[in-house]
Amino acid sequence: MAKPTPLSGFPEWLPAQRIVEQQILKIVQETFELHGFASIETRAVEPLEQLLSKGETSKEVYLLNRLQAAEGEEQSRDKQLGLHFDLTVPFARYVLENAGHLAFPFKRYQIQKVWRGERPQDGRFREFYQADIDVVGAGELPYHFEVELPLVMAEAFGRLRSLGVPEFKILVNNRRVSEGFYRGLGLNDIEGVLRNIDKLDKIGADKVRELLVDETGASQQQAQLCLDLAGISGTDASVIGQVRALAEGNGVAHELLEQGLNELEALLNAAAVRAPGTIEANLKIARGLDYYTGCVYESVLIGHEDLGSICSGGRYDTLASDGKNTYPGVGLSIGVSRLVSRLLSKGIVTASRSVPTAVLVAVLDEEHRAASDRVAAALRARGIATDVAPSAAKFGKQIKFADRRGIPFVWFPEGTNQAGEFVAHQVKDIRSGEQVDADPNAWVPQDAADLTPTVFAQA
Amino acid sequence: MAKPTPLSGFPEWLPAQRIVEQQILKIVQETFELHGFASIETRAVEPLEQLLSKGETSKEVYLLNRLQAAEGEEQSRDKQLGLHFDLTVPFARYVLENAGHLAFPFKRYQIQKVWRGERPQDGRFREFYQADIDVVGAGELPYHFEVELPLVMAEAFGRLRSLGVPEFKILVNNRRVSEGFYRGLGLNDIEGVLRNIDKLDKIGADKVRELLVDETGASQQQAQLCLDLAGISGTDASVIGQVRALAEGNGVAHELLEQGLNELEALLNAAAVRAPGTIEANLKIARGLDYYTGCVYESVLIGHEDLGSICSGGRYDTLASDGKNTYPGVGLSIGVSRLVSRLLSKGIVTASRSVPTAVLVAVLDEEHRAASDRVAAALRARGIATDVAPSAAKFGKQIKFADRRGIPFVWFPEGTNQAGEFVAHQVKDIRSGEQVDADPNAWVPQDAADLTPTVFAQA
Repeated sequence: MAKPTPLSGFPEWLPAQRIVEQQILKIVQETFELHGFASIETRAVEPLEQLLSKGETSKEVYLLNRLQAAEGEEQSRDKQLGLHFDLTVPFARYVLENAGHLAFPFKRYQIQKVWRGERPQDGRFREFYQADIDVVGAGELPYHFEVELPLVMAEAFGRLRSLGVPEFKILVNNRRVSEGFYRGLGLNDIEGVLRNIDKLDKIGADKVRELLVDETGASQQQAQLCLDLAGISGTDASVIGQVRALAEGNGVAHELLEQGLNELEALLNAAAVRAPGTIEANLKIARGLDYYTGCVYESVLIGHEDLGSICSGGRYDTLASDGKNTYPGVGLSIGVSRLVSRLLSKGIVTASRSVPTAVLVAVLDEEHRAASDRVAAALRARGIATDVAPSAAKFGKQIKFADRRGIPFVWFPEGTNQAGEFVAHQVKDIRSGEQVDADPNAWVPQDAADLTPTVFAQA
Repeated sequence: MAKPTPLSGFPEWLPAQRIVEQQILKIVQETFELHGFASIETRAVEPLEQLLSKGETSKEVYLLNRLQAAEGEEQSRDKQLGLHFDLTVPFARYVLENAGHLAFPFKRYQIQKVWRGERPQDGRFREFYQADIDVVGAGELPYHFEVELPLVMAEAFGRLRSLGVPEFKILVNNRRVSEGFYRGLGLNDIEGVLRNIDKLDKIGADKVRELLVDETGASQQQAQLCLDLAGISGTDASVIGQVRALAEGNGVAHELLEQGLNELEALLNAAAVRAPGTIEANLKIARGLDYYTGCVYESVLIGHEDLGSICSGGRYDTLASDGKNTYPGVGLSIGVSRLVSRLLSKGIVTASRSVPTAVLVAVLDEEHRAASDRVAAALRARGIATDVAPSAAKFGKQIKFADRRGIPFVWFPEGTNQAGEFVAHQVKDIRSGEQVDADPNAWVPQDAADLTPTVFAQA
């Protein structure tokens, strides 16, 4: 077989890069669990009809066919399976399917790969990791979860800073504020206004104003006020005052606006205490999708705004419904692969080594391999990841084996007794060259951080 | 949408079941890392030609098509993608693709889902987790890795016993022993003999004898000696003596047989020290696939032999080759979903709770939610997974919320000062009913095992 080449849109990492991804996933998962989210995984496939229930995404689906499908087995449309393109659609299905076995409100996290059949471009992937949290209620779901969930994500990103991940900001809006303001203005095509406001960053204010006038029946003045609202942002409750002033100064009043502002204020107040500076009310956040009904979230990695949002979501009154019961939810999703890919491709972070191994035990000669294995077993029994040299080469070559992988310590057994046990040991920190006597049943590295690979900001 | 029903062959777990799966995966992963295996993940898809390079498996492949594939984009066969059906084929491709960036011998573990498009039956899944370890060398790979790898798996399964997983035994044979014995007997259709010996458990000795005579040109006596060899098994080196006696007593001698017996003996000697009783030489293990060239491994869960092998593999001299370079390897793969499914469906193990949460902080009334949030933050900052009650219901109802999920502790804040901070706290172990004063900045459960869900053998 000739040397294979990568498939565009299907990222794969080398071992040291994978360590970066693993540590990011670990911190994210730990944060979710500290907040009481339960893990679930759903199958990779869903019936096509399920995947198409949100029309816009149909172009992105990968369909499955069995290579050796029996004659006449060609899938009828209603049995056709496709790979999931997000974790929300499968979660909604899981909730309906298992509602009788779940305790509501149900908080779950889900970290899995998803697939999108689009042509890879603009750093978009065809296969990528998402890390989602959602809370779903049976019939009702109190507002405080809309405050809680972005704060969980803020905490996760706060913890990621220890790996060298850049600062991050969550941008929040509330659908009720937008809708209440537009309705108070006398506009009724709420979806149309939101869809156009969503284009602000792409096409600029002048074009959006035109579109609002042309498509949603707004007057020049109404369109301008929509743009004025979209221009308001800030991390403290003064934002609420600015919106109120804009509304009152222009005779705009609506019950939804009032409710939305109160909700947004509660979120900002909580954020000021629990994640100061990381949550910004930003009234231009519209999120194209029409199923959001309360808070909507996007986020940016500071200095990497071109990446787009790496953590998004919102509140939906109908995450799932079986006709009898309705399950409202609120959730956010981290685009893990997008984040990891940027961190790696720009050399933002790096891993201290390409293996989990902390210690390499040297092998004196093949006759003494078993004795080296016993040293390794003693170290592993105390939680120290240990490898044994693959061959009894010269010690210089064994040290090079460790060095190539970034293994910090090489263990040298010396002198055996009649039972073939080593009676003396030295361990060398190959970074500093320091070599000391050591006991396999007691030695630990001076710096406990050396026990596992470290991920850190690259100089 | 009507209540959805499960898809046959695509297992999904409820949250408490998923905790069982997570803890099994965690122990397996920790064991692999303690032994210095580096994590990699490969994309879920491979080019079809790659997947079909081992002819026998072609019936199992799921092909991918984009729902909205452009006209004329219908995949030509050489661009057709399919889902991987194991982790060995993708790993071989990964090694070739990245050889220049890897350090050999390269030890990797890989824990991912795989897909097989077969009709689900006999507890076979269409989507399931595999957990693989392999070591691959550039050009050469010393025999001691064939000893090392099953011992790593034995250690992993040994650790799984703490979760209530039944005892487990790895069955080992060596292709050189079989081939050397058959050739020494004068048989040349080695593949044919192995293929028929592989059927012993299914069709019995008499039918295998017939097939050996009919298909491989063996005499009745040769066939009987093949069966005699297959009947030998044991966990200590006396097995080697039995094989030698059988060979010498019948004038069978071959260089390969001698080499294979020496290798097998080294493995049994190491196992006697490092994993006594868990590794059995079993001369009937044939493993149908023809690419194994040294040790072959299968394994059984004691008392669940009907499950078939849940951990298999072997040595292959040509894991991958690009024409110039050849990469020999040895590896084993755990069928994690098969194991987990059996543990759950037979009620062998169970999880102490369905959430990661150790403590539920009660909420006095909605005005004091922020104060309860602060208690939760203090506990989380010390690594204690904590949830806050979703509503300020009566305490009895809040306790029931914890009870339904198996959360062991409920935290009751009492009496606030002027700043709205709680000034007194009690924590109740809802299993024993014991309630004590507690400080959010200092309290830990008496039994540290209560911090995380426990998985244990069901009574």
